[in-house]
Amino acid sequence: MFTATIDAALLKDSIETLTVLVDEARFRISPEGIAVRAVDPANVAMVSFDLTPNAFDDFSASDCEIGLDLTKITDILGVAERSDKVIIELDEQSKKLSIGIGQISYTLALLDPSTIRAEPRIPQLDLAAEIVINGKDLMKSVKAAEKISDHMSLGVEGETFFIEAKGDTDNMRQEMTREQLIDLKTGDVHSLFSLDYLTDMVKPASKSNEVTLHLGSDLPLKLNFNIANGEGKIGYLLAPRIESD
Amino acid sequence: MFTATIDAALLKDSIETLTVLVDEARFRISPEGIAVRAVDPANVAMVSFDLTPNAFDDFSASDCEIGLDLTKITDILGVAERSDKVIIELDEQSKKLSIGIGQISYTLALLDPSTIRAEPRIPQLDLAAEIVINGKDLMKSVKAAEKISDHMSLGVEGETFFIEAKGDTDNMRQEMTREQLIDLKTGDVHSLFSLDYLTDMVKPASKSNEVTLHLGSDLPLKLNFNIANGEGKIGYLLAPRIESD
Amino acid sequence: MFTATIDAALLKDSIETLTVLVDEARFRISPEGIAVRAVDPANVAMVSFDLTPNAFDDFSASDCEIGLDLTKITDILGVAERSDKVIIELDEQSKKLSIGIGQISYTLALLDPSTIRAEPRIPQLDLAAEIVINGKDLMKSVKAAEKISDHMSLGVEGETFFIEAKGDTDNMRQEMTREQLIDLKTGDVHSLFSLDYLTDMVKPASKSNEVTLHLGSDLPLKLNFNIANGEGKIGYLLAPRIESD
Repeated sequence: MFTATIDAALLKDSIETLTVLVDEARFRISPEGIAVRAVDPANVAMVSFDLTPNAFDDFSASDCEIGLDLTKITDILGVAERSDKVIIELDEQSKKLSIGIGQISYTLALLDPSTIRAEPRIPQLDLAAEIVINGKDLMKSVKAAEKISDHMSLGVEGETFFIEAKGDTDNMRQEMTREQLIDLKTGDVHSLFSLDYLTDMVKPASKSNEVTLHLGSDLPLKLNFNIANGEGKIGYLLAPRIESD
Repeated sequence: MFTATIDAALLKDSIETLTVLVDEARFRISPEGIAVRAVDPANVAMVSFDLTPNAFDDFSASDCEIGLDLTKITDILGVAERSDKVIIELDEQSKKLSIGIGQISYTLALLDPSTIRAEPRIPQLDLAAEIVINGKDLMKSVKAAEKISDHMSLGVEGETFFIEAKGDTDNMRQEMTREQLIDLKTGDVHSLFSLDYLTDMVKPASKSNEVTLHLGSDLPLKLNFNIANGEGKIGYLLAPRIESD
Repeated sequence: MFTATIDAALLKDSIETLTVLVDEARFRISPEGIAVRAVDPANVAMVSFDLTPNAFDDFSASDCEIGLDLTKITDILGVAERSDKVIIELDEQSKKLSIGIGQISYTLALLDPSTIRAEPRIPQLDLAAEIVINGKDLMKSVKAAEKISDHMSLGVEGETFFIEAKGDTDNMRQEMTREQLIDLKTGDVHSLFSLDYLTDMVKPASKSNEVTLHLGSDLPLKLNFNIANGEGKIGYLLAPRIESD
């Protein structure tokens, strides 16, 4: 059983954090809220998604798992104004989800969860450095790196967080001290990442005032931020690229 | 003989009601105004277009018929701001139309009307139900149906106007009572229509506060609305699709 | 030696006046400012570009010449808000240019000036007519001509400046008297020009209140305007097309 009412803007922003990595997902629904754990088709990045019942105007659920086509949901939510309410209702008998937007009512077939890739195990990582940065600032840095290369380094040297991109003849570097960040726990580290993935991840993250980065040396990046006014949290994990030089 | 002055915005909006169905058209001009009757190349839809002399700042005409390339006219009107005046003058000797926009003067060759498909006879239809709806609301419903299918049903059941689209696994339905409409004359009817055509037709209709739909069962849709502050009227007729189920 | 600080908006607008004709350019830098003379790959148009030190917040230079990839510079300046300051520094040892935008620092390899086409000699021309016109008005006229043809005539007849485009069946003509212009020095002239080039040239010119056109008969067009609040000047020279009629 699952029925819920939520702001269209909040639902759109939540779904977007998943669509940057996957087209379909298993949603674990329980009285404690909604959880998704998913890995992208190339096994390079994972997302951990949690939304509490407080993110909803109404939320009533017993334990269940449903599979959803995120592309279709995103398309349908395009009908809603950001200020509309969306009413969601699960019909477990017919395996349909009904989505109401104003006077318009959609009935969508669910995907069989067993046809969707299983939930990944999120690895425990010991990452020495932690940077807390404004989401818009992070997006700006990633866009600046894209001008030079298709991958970029993130690292910490002493009291400085740095972002670096190297092309064949040109390069880009940005340094930010603790004062220019929200917080910085140092540890001399640096890792190289694909900009394809980072560009997609920082888009939803840019809507958050505080994005936390956990960094090691040649280790995955953890990128965490809250959604739904703090009633939801997103954690991305991105594998490093091997530096070729 | 034909000379006229008209607001650019009004002329652009008028021409747009024709271009959704045809690229070129015969314009019947008389002291009573301008009339066009045209059918789309696939014979699925017709438009009936009438503009009175009051839609113009100046209007002076004797009986004549001219053929116009609507794509070219639309392109040229792109030069005009919506608040500009457009001065139109017909030179019957040289078979040219001059269009003045500010200091810019265009001279366009007319098309020979006999090379343009003849005016269709608009059939008389006995359609039981009549729905009067806000144009923006109608466009929103059509866009919502597009998410699910390439055709949609329009119908009336008792006191309720409904819009329905069925896909292979998903569907969409919207119901509107008399209170949510401007007016409703009931009659249990429903017909299926191609969204290709409806999407095009509701775009100009969406600028009108009152759009009247006449519906029967497996009969064409009549979609009527005014333009030019009531000094023009548009009637679309759209053939139904045969339901395959 | 060369270091300078300049408004991002001003630098973007300056570079744009060059990119309409060339992808890379030789910049002659001296204590008197920056100068570029370039000709487009098809030898149809030239640009003469001059920026004084007063266009900069800071400017310090000894005589030098550098080659720059304008496409790359334009791409990188896309990172800057129009109100940002851009700090430029030349490292002659390593043949690199550093460009600082906020906390972001780019280091770009210079092009060897000898690999870039040599500066053209700007011909002295005796052009009888001179028209001073608002840049936006000029752009509007060029866009109106594009609807009809891919080339247009510019000319003066008596006290009237005219713009004319002729298509196979249609044509466009605009006449402007001295009162509708900023200034007009008459001389009966007219020449035909490619709209491909004019469209590109009037885009940066449209930001200037006063654009001066010098015209002869079947002679090149000189199109001059100021940039950087009068601290820079741009001169385009465009070869005429031979009229085929």
